[in-house]
Amino acid sequence: MPKPSNREKILTEGLRIMHERGYAGASVRDIVQAAGVPQGSFTNHFASKEAFCLEALELYFARGKETAAQTLGNEALAPLARLEAWLDVSRNKLACESMRNGCLFGNFSAEASEHSEAIRNRLIEMFAALTRAVADCLRAAVRAGELAPSVDCDEVAGFIVSSLQGAILMSKTQRSPVPLERFRHILFSMILR
Amino acid sequence: MPKPSNREKILTEGLRIMHERGYAGASVRDIVQAAGVPQGSFTNHFASKEAFCLEALELYFARGKETAAQTLGNEALAPLARLEAWLDVSRNKLACESMRNGCLFGNFSAEASEHSEAIRNRLIEMFAALTRAVADCLRAAVRAGELAPSVDCDEVAGFIVSSLQGAILMSKTQRSPVPLERFRHILFSMILR
Repeated sequence: MPKPSNREKILTEGLRIMHERGYAGASVRDIVQAAGVPQGSFTNHFASKEAFCLEALELYFARGKETAAQTLGNEALAPLARLEAWLDVSRNKLACESMRNGCLFGNFSAEASEHSEAIRNRLIEMFAALTRAVADCLRAAVRAGELAPSVDCDEVAGFIVSSLQGAILMSKTQRSPVPLERFRHILFSMILR
Repeated sequence: MPKPSNREKILTEGLRIMHERGYAGASVRDIVQAAGVPQGSFTNHFASKEAFCLEALELYFARGKETAAQTLGNEALAPLARLEAWLDVSRNKLACESMRNGCLFGNFSAEASEHSEAIRNRLIEMFAALTRAVADCLRAAVRAGELAPSVDCDEVAGFIVSSLQGAILMSKTQRSPVPLERFRHILFSMILR
């Protein structure tokens, strides 16, 4: 494998630091220190912290799309089992740091959306793409007879994506999987039945 | 009415600035500028930015408890109507700044919980108090025959508080009431029925 470039190191390590400390809380200095590259290397590759954050957000989104493709898009499973698999894999990823980092989408929504219109607008598009993937899975569940045809798949998908963000936020604060597990339990026992 | 003291001005205006810009994004300088007091006044009254934020959080919580008492605690209404009133008043408060500020609890959960253990622990207590108030309202709804006795009021209350945080976060990002309205609609049409 080729050695990662400084640009790649800044993106990978910077994403990690940004995810831990937040948009305002992580400085360019923190990012280059974590990446082990000289400060000048950052300015060579990124026009600003905002420009860097937009690229880090794309990297995070690409990883999220991969997870969604492997779970929500796994046609070997029944539709609602795909949704369960997606929630399980997402929870396991969050659990790596005892839930303390939460989801970068949610963290940036709470904080960076005030500092950058470009980030705010990109977050809206990313949440919309995720909602469409969940809605497609719900529509497949209706076709398979797992959900009643009366279910409004787009509305329920929007509710799932939004409520999941809330559960991740609570799990982050409590550093506990309990809020995420409660969300999963109520979703499948009271909403998708 | 007596003139507000510098301490009161710092708390009221500082809370506003903190709510807008976040824990790391709002500096002590921003706070004293907004309050129109000399920088020394901040250090006279607060040992640190963390100490200030803890007091600002208490002020925000006190306002939230007042709202909860007037709605969730309004025995002139049927129990589920109390819950609807609480969601309506909460939405109207958020709508004052086109939803852009979100809820301070959620913003601090996403961001400040990483910077301060004291804030993180106080947030857990505040969410727990809010969850108890919602659970009491759901128990009253069971007693009044509005909900089935099989409903696990504590679990559903935890789910409501967590999902509401997610909906507020989405409304903040989109600067739109739609996610909050979707939450309310699905809560009453699919969960509390």
